[in-house]
Amino acid sequence: MTQPQALLFDVFGTVVDWRTSVAREAAAFLSADLDWEAFADAWRERYQPAMQEVRSGRRPWTILDVLHYENLQTVLQSFGLHDVPDDRLAELNQAWHRLDPWPDTVAGLERLKRRYIIAPHSNGNICLLVNMAKRAGLPWDVILGAEVVRAYKPLPESYKRAVATLGRAPDQCMMVAAHNGDLRAAQAQGLQTAFVARPREHGEQQSTDLTPSGDWTIVAEDFEDLAAQLGA
Amino acid sequence: MTQPQALLFDVFGTVVDWRTSVAREAAAFLSADLDWEAFADAWRERYQPAMQEVRSGRRPWTILDVLHYENLQTVLQSFGLHDVPDDRLAELNQAWHRLDPWPDTVAGLERLKRRYIIAPHSNGNICLLVNMAKRAGLPWDVILGAEVVRAYKPLPESYKRAVATLGRAPDQCMMVAAHNGDLRAAQAQGLQTAFVARPREHGEQQSTDLTPSGDWTIVAEDFEDLAAQLGA
Repeated sequence: MTQPQALLFDVFGTVVDWRTSVAREAAAFLSADLDWEAFADAWRERYQPAMQEVRSGRRPWTILDVLHYENLQTVLQSFGLHDVPDDRLAELNQAWHRLDPWPDTVAGLERLKRRYIIAPHSNGNICLLVNMAKRAGLPWDVILGAEVVRAYKPLPESYKRAVATLGRAPDQCMMVAAHNGDLRAAQAQGLQTAFVARPREHGEQQSTDLTPSGDWTIVAEDFEDLAAQLGA
Repeated sequence: MTQPQALLFDVFGTVVDWRTSVAREAAAFLSADLDWEAFADAWRERYQPAMQEVRSGRRPWTILDVLHYENLQTVLQSFGLHDVPDDRLAELNQAWHRLDPWPDTVAGLERLKRRYIIAPHSNGNICLLVNMAKRAGLPWDVILGAEVVRAYKPLPESYKRAVATLGRAPDQCMMVAAHNGDLRAAQAQGLQTAFVARPREHGEQQSTDLTPSGDWTIVAEDFEDLAAQLGA
């Protein structure tokens, strides 16, 4: 195994618990009696189709905050919430800037940062990732991701440009994710891979990404275990 | 004065002492008997003209590492150093990734980071700024700069896009620089401004930017003083 120099992290699900956090934010914000985890799921369900419009070239480059905002308008309608004013929508949309890390995230990142360049490589835009990091104490060295490379994962360009931006060879970089699909796409571009299962990302009934499904460089229990396995 | 949320830092000269550092790196690397500060000056002298080719649109977007490399080839010739092999040139070019901070830089940034988003907004590319930060302990929240906004300072787009990338209004951002010209361009786009004199950036004989020449929001002695004036 080549010693990696930089670790690129998927964020939604891998670093932070988006579902519980969005449900909490939306409940506090709209204070109605709803199944807020279902609301979070419905909002998130529109995430991939919205990015697919951009990936396919049918839509010009658009940051995730804008896609989230459009998706929020649709989801509010489908939940019968018709009277939220636009300025309050913009505030609620920032729920994605206030996601809580998993319990091992910050301690693990702090250890890893001592030895490696650590960077989010997320489909989230820069402002979202900065605000999240300041609130949650995520000690990134640099924020990469879709807005820097102008491509949404899992497009090959997303990984290739992230590696080039860091001035490294692909095998000097390691993608860290709770999603086998993200790792498969990164591996196809020559990156090393680390799988960290997040079996509660989608709640108690989660059925996907419970176990590694590829030949990943590292399989770790959590970020502390990842740090231990990487000698950090 | 509106309370700023994000501080954008010029880097070469403001955060780090490029002249002494490049002279040291080049001397150690080429171990010839030369005036290495003059060498650093000559290398730096080609910086603005090279960027101007890109700013003007005569040349497509090109990162600073590439411009530095081309300029290094020319400068070596002009100093009579004709036999440096290409792979060693690439190593020497990384001298710009190994610049030392001024004595007050790290302590000041650490204080400022507690209260503000701190980001380099430099003409340096991302890889250069990450490597520099890891070596020098610069605790950036996010790395902005020319490669993120695809425009070299002092073009108006450089400041406008940096502000938009952070999701802030211009007056929620403050440009911090040792160069009046950088602050003038930032102020024209509505940013707040902080001048920190670096009277030895160009050595003992420096004659430019010794004092503030505009109506800047803050004039500080150094980064510790800046932190104090900003309540951090």
